[in-house]
Amino acid sequence: MELRECNPEILKNLEKVRNALVSAAREAKATIVDVSFHEFNPFGISGVVIIAESHLTIHTWPEYGYAAIDVFTCGDIIKPEVAASFLIKQFECKNPSIVEMKRGILSHENEKLPHKVSSSSTCDADLYQTVNS
Amino acid sequence: MELRECNPEILKNLEKVRNALVSAAREAKATIVDVSFHEFNPFGISGVVIIAESHLTIHTWPEYGYAAIDVFTCGDIIKPEVAASFLIKQFECKNPSIVEMKRGILSHENEKLPHKVSSSSTCDADLYQTVNS
Repeated sequence: MELRECNPEILKNLEKVRNALVSAAREAKATIVDVSFHEFNPFGISGVVIIAESHLTIHTWPEYGYAAIDVFTCGDIIKPEVAASFLIKQFECKNPSIVEMKRGILSHENEKLPHKVSSSSTCDADLYQTVNS
Repeated sequence: MELRECNPEILKNLEKVRNALVSAAREAKATIVDVSFHEFNPFGISGVVIIAESHLTIHTWPEYGYAAIDVFTCGDIIKPEVAASFLIKQFECKNPSIVEMKRGILSHENEKLPHKVSSSSTCDADLYQTVNS
């Protein structure tokens, strides 16, 4: 996601940026595994939410009202578009663009990439999904 | 990076995957800010190296010999292609493919996206680079 014309006050606020990404992961029904956010001088935030279904990352340039976000997911349960819509609202973005990339396209037809199962989570153990449907 | 036909024994080894990503960041002359890696059941690793110049992420599916890697960088100093070549070797990948995406292309000509400066790092304070050259 390329988020231009965001609210710069939000983009420079570590707490708000972290909350936005963590909430976006929850909205998309992801299983959160780890969260790490960092603030830079003079401003700008970088952060990642590792989820059992891959990750969300963000890098913000408040001085340009710009944020680069990746929503990387696998499986059919997770809805990356829900996270995307949520994030556009959270950053009050007036000029968003989204490019979708298919990953993990394997050569064998009907081959399925299994969803990750967190060792600390048992409820998703039956989630074996394809990313190359 | 789509890394197919990797050595599955490497892809399932948390220590080796983490070392590969951290070393790739160093090879590319990145400034490492944080490192987080996780192992999943029955196997598979997810991890991120946050760098002052953005991030590297990986998700491995050893059972398919497959790894999805993102090398997200800004600035002219960092050489993502050095990290990419290094990672292909580390995972003994026989079928790699790389897609490059330009990010942070702003509407104003000559506008520059500044490189992040870590609050714990002073040596990079003069690194103001463009990603839209």
